[in-house]
Amino acid sequence: MKEKIDLLGAGLIGSLLAIYLKKRGLDVNIYEKRQDWRKIKKKGEGRSINMALSDRGWQALEKAGIKDKVLPFTLPMSGRRIHDEHGSTYFQPYGKENQAIYSISRNAFNEILLDEAEALGANIHFNHKVERVNVSKREVEFCLENGEEKRMTSDVLIGSDGSFSALRNAFQSQLRFNFYQKFISHGYKELHIPATPSGEFAMDPKALHIWPRGKFMLIALPNLDKSFTCTLFLPFEGYKVSFENIYDDQDVVKIFKTYFNDAFDLMPNLLADFKNNPTSSLINTECYPWTENNALLIGDAAHAMVPFYGQGMNCGFEDCFILDNLIEKYGTSSWDLVFEKFQKTRKPDTDAICQLAMDNFVEMSDDIADPNFLIRKKIEAKLHELYPEEWQPLYSMVTFSDMRYSEAYAIGKLQAKIMDEVMKDPNVTKNWNSLDYEAILAKVVTSGAV
Amino acid sequence: MKEKIDLLGAGLIGSLLAIYLKKRGLDVNIYEKRQDWRKIKKKGEGRSINMALSDRGWQALEKAGIKDKVLPFTLPMSGRRIHDEHGSTYFQPYGKENQAIYSISRNAFNEILLDEAEALGANIHFNHKVERVNVSKREVEFCLENGEEKRMTSDVLIGSDGSFSALRNAFQSQLRFNFYQKFISHGYKELHIPATPSGEFAMDPKALHIWPRGKFMLIALPNLDKSFTCTLFLPFEGYKVSFENIYDDQDVVKIFKTYFNDAFDLMPNLLADFKNNPTSSLINTECYPWTENNALLIGDAAHAMVPFYGQGMNCGFEDCFILDNLIEKYGTSSWDLVFEKFQKTRKPDTDAICQLAMDNFVEMSDDIADPNFLIRKKIEAKLHELYPEEWQPLYSMVTFSDMRYSEAYAIGKLQAKIMDEVMKDPNVTKNWNSLDYEAILAKVVTSGAV
Repeated sequence: MKEKIDLLGAGLIGSLLAIYLKKRGLDVNIYEKRQDWRKIKKKGEGRSINMALSDRGWQALEKAGIKDKVLPFTLPMSGRRIHDEHGSTYFQPYGKENQAIYSISRNAFNEILLDEAEALGANIHFNHKVERVNVSKREVEFCLENGEEKRMTSDVLIGSDGSFSALRNAFQSQLRFNFYQKFISHGYKELHIPATPSGEFAMDPKALHIWPRGKFMLIALPNLDKSFTCTLFLPFEGYKVSFENIYDDQDVVKIFKTYFNDAFDLMPNLLADFKNNPTSSLINTECYPWTENNALLIGDAAHAMVPFYGQGMNCGFEDCFILDNLIEKYGTSSWDLVFEKFQKTRKPDTDAICQLAMDNFVEMSDDIADPNFLIRKKIEAKLHELYPEEWQPLYSMVTFSDMRYSEAYAIGKLQAKIMDEVMKDPNVTKNWNSLDYEAILAKVVTSGAV
Repeated sequence: MKEKIDLLGAGLIGSLLAIYLKKRGLDVNIYEKRQDWRKIKKKGEGRSINMALSDRGWQALEKAGIKDKVLPFTLPMSGRRIHDEHGSTYFQPYGKENQAIYSISRNAFNEILLDEAEALGANIHFNHKVERVNVSKREVEFCLENGEEKRMTSDVLIGSDGSFSALRNAFQSQLRFNFYQKFISHGYKELHIPATPSGEFAMDPKALHIWPRGKFMLIALPNLDKSFTCTLFLPFEGYKVSFENIYDDQDVVKIFKTYFNDAFDLMPNLLADFKNNPTSSLINTECYPWTENNALLIGDAAHAMVPFYGQGMNCGFEDCFILDNLIEKYGTSSWDLVFEKFQKTRKPDTDAICQLAMDNFVEMSDDIADPNFLIRKKIEAKLHELYPEEWQPLYSMVTFSDMRYSEAYAIGKLQAKIMDEVMKDPNVTKNWNSLDYEAILAKVVTSGAV
């Protein structure tokens, strides 16, 4: 029996999920509110947000059989290159020598996935804006481009429609639904560093560049066309350097010259970009349940996180991977069972990564510029070198493994507690290399965490 | 200059607020989605939810000049009467001898307030269901009884439209708005104990009756017609005694005979009530900001709490009282200023009472039947007797004072910590009366809390 399944949202998660579902022989329709962006691009090309693909994402792409098509569109970043206020930079590797995260343009990536889903037979309906969902009837009301209304009743309905999910809104008003949304105090703005006049990268392309400045920061990720997409994170208000205090070009120039002078020199279009690009906000959402009556939330619709661990997309892809494993195991005769298993196993993990992403803003914007933090990282690196299995850095567990996020979170908490103790040693800066590393590790082992 | 102000929702909070605003000479319109329930009553009279009015509520009514009109409709309850499983009861006073909380029918109460608001010149528009609010334009779209649409643009807009506030929904989707909603694991059902055949109260009318049974409970409040309105709180699922496990009349009878046998004997209409009355859920919501662009959330719209501290309405009335104090102080030339001051001062207090209400379910349904809890209460009562200013029970600070909820909460936490220590004494059951009370109090004083 061929089964019919409807997805809301043709973004990264919806497209990858459609690929998985088509490969299971299902009849897949995707409804997307935007027009088909593949047809209207060409003018602003390359000017899109970058995503950082890491192991969980790759694993999901590999299972979907699309890894090799994606790889040519990515650039490996093997560490952070940190820019201090004087223009000096230094490099912090993310993991071992062969480990990296991969920069990829969101638009290009979405196109690859969408093309593949379509090639496999998924029907994509653009210009379908969800107006209303009746969860108990699984009935969706769309508003089309011409203002016309259209109704659809689904057998199985999946909301892969992002942070402001229409399906989740329906859950919120129609179910006994626990929901939490928090906008953080910071917003962001996309900026751009073009290739040099001779057509080269203006900075080291094998790193994610960070200008950490405490309460604010700038980051930059490389693009295939040898430009960088930059993101400026500032508080909306309440601080000297904040969006509310930027009135005109002079303010922008002043902030960049004061705090990001080396980047400023590489940004000929700074003022125009600053004016034309919107200031966007950052939201964290958590909710439960994710499923009701053969309808399911997935990806950002179920758990939108702030971008500071680079895991939002990877986590959404892992959602698809896990859901597909469950379909493999339980079949498609009871979607309620599959969806129920999915939310039960997955929820603790997405809670953990949401929390880690929130916590990581402090690390990215502040800690990484702190000498003590560097010593701490050195000690942790040495622990990992001496005991590669027993002490894995939290960042590696999250980024370079498929360990459950909740497990990584718990181990990370324990490691942090142990490291807090270690860092109390007043001589740690001098003798960090000759500490009793066996004794430090023993604390992990006796806790039963490993 | 006469100013125009629009309220959404003509419930208890909206009606009281309208009285305050009329008394300030403003032009007040209330839009209410229900029809005018004053015209359609008479048949189910007396069968409404009861509210428990306490000091904060009375203070607000007094300032609005309506206290004397309300008083005749109330019945004082000076304590809890606790029913054990064998039909024995005992009485726990809520406070000092002259202190009580007051039972009043929600419908009757709403009528008094609405009549008064109307008498003062407020215009009440019934059958106005909010379809959509545009916050930045302060534009409200209503759907009328006949299906017609109607638009209104407000100068000043206040959402007193309860736990599922339409204005709050608009805030949620249109602002950088932090929002949290949680449904607790329990639901409730209204039941009824009529007057005796001879026209008397079937139980002590000067108490709030509680049948605490750990994970569930029954409560009853007296009505003017000598009946009691009862509320059964059960988990929805996951326990033997839960709504999901009640399939038929026999299950209802079995639960009542097993756990509430003395109440069962007083409930001739139990089975019909159980069948006809809905099973309702309980929600806690917290959000911020409460105000934007001359629009404000107030009462349950800003902070819906579970009913276990009997403070939902009292807190909403206190909101009105505080808002009116701010209007008194700052005038009406800048509503944004008044609303901003209101949310800043009030938010920590509503957070505190939301948390206390959540915590109090455990006390009401479980602790109060525990011998250790009774000893604990005796020690606290004695502390209060010896040091009436320095040690006030948390319940009294919340219920019989106008101390800020956040302050009561903080003091309550400190007291709980001290009492946890005191209760560690293995002989406390025997020697509770001869403890070193001065030493116990000293812990409060040295903490700087008093």
